[in-house]
Amino acid sequence: MRQEKLDALNKIVRKFSVKEIREVEGSGKKFITSVPKEYILSGGMTVRREEILKNGKAGSAVIVVPVCGDEILTSIEPRVFTKLTVGVGFPAGYVEEGEDPKDAAIRELEEESGLEVSELIELDSFYQDEGCSAALNVIYLALGCKKTHEQHLDKDEFVECMTFTYDELLELEKMGYIMGGNSKLALHKIEKYLRK
Amino acid sequence: MRQEKLDALNKIVRKFSVKEIREVEGSGKKFITSVPKEYILSGGMTVRREEILKNGKAGSAVIVVPVCGDEILTSIEPRVFTKLTVGVGFPAGYVEEGEDPKDAAIRELEEESGLEVSELIELDSFYQDEGCSAALNVIYLALGCKKTHEQHLDKDEFVECMTFTYDELLELEKMGYIMGGNSKLALHKIEKYLRK
Repeated sequence: MRQEKLDALNKIVRKFSVKEIREVEGSGKKFITSVPKEYILSGGMTVRREEILKNGKAGSAVIVVPVCGDEILTSIEPRVFTKLTVGVGFPAGYVEEGEDPKDAAIRELEEESGLEVSELIELDSFYQDEGCSAALNVIYLALGCKKTHEQHLDKDEFVECMTFTYDELLELEKMGYIMGGNSKLALHKIEKYLRK
Repeated sequence: MRQEKLDALNKIVRKFSVKEIREVEGSGKKFITSVPKEYILSGGMTVRREEILKNGKAGSAVIVVPVCGDEILTSIEPRVFTKLTVGVGFPAGYVEEGEDPKDAAIRELEEESGLEVSELIELDSFYQDEGCSAALNVIYLALGCKKTHEQHLDKDEFVECMTFTYDELLELEKMGYIMGGNSKLALHKIEKYLRK
């Protein structure tokens, strides 16, 4: 790992780390809700399950691994529920109503990083939390990425981008900077492709 | 893939597949809830995030990959929110209040499969959904497993166990039987160990 990269990353981690937590009033519409239903199986058994909804939908997402020359771009974000309170991952986001996952990948990449992609390859899809959610996520590899404009984020969104080599990403995983299941799975799924 | 294995699997898939969905009254305590809070970051920014709670807790889980001789034991379960409505994965479950994840792994393995493990190796840990949840899951490899008693499941839990070779598991992943992110990540994390 290049020391200057690690120093730059730690500077972002310090800036994004949680300093204080405040309770908020429980009023207002919630982003996360759940719906309980009963499911009758073909074998005659009945099971009751609750489905997690995000903004009233399944919350399917895309994860985009952008290749920029010899390096891979990562997204560093506040991850307030984790031990470090900051996480290194890849550009990712929810698929909007009626949106094609591929379009969501192009949009999210552009919003989080300002990158434009020349070739998008679907690597895999998986359920985020198959016992409690219908969210079906797609992992894309984005080849030939070029920075064409500035990032533009939502009001409540803070993302800093940094590039690393694939081996540095494996080091970051071992060091505990990459801790999200989605990012770890994406890191695995690109391995075969990059090692070719 | 051995044809008799695939036939046996498909028989379980048919039995567990969802035939009918029934609405239930929204009364009663919910398993899934969420808590919104405000987080003040060291850089001065404020973000509002909602945390998914399962039964009032983070919902950290263990995933156990049991090696039985030359094969690996899988859990086949109704996965009512997925396209197939049934999923192939590994014994897994939530860590109880105050329980050591290693003890949870031994307990869940025994409950779902009736197996007793002789050596438990921690392979990795990861956040289930790092943007919305503090659930920190641990993946274990369980070596030298032996069937010592019958499975004992909760009232609402249906699990059938089958063993496959590692290469058959990779086939099952390609065929879309293994679709959960946790199971896919576990499948990756055991690869290095088993290929030694």
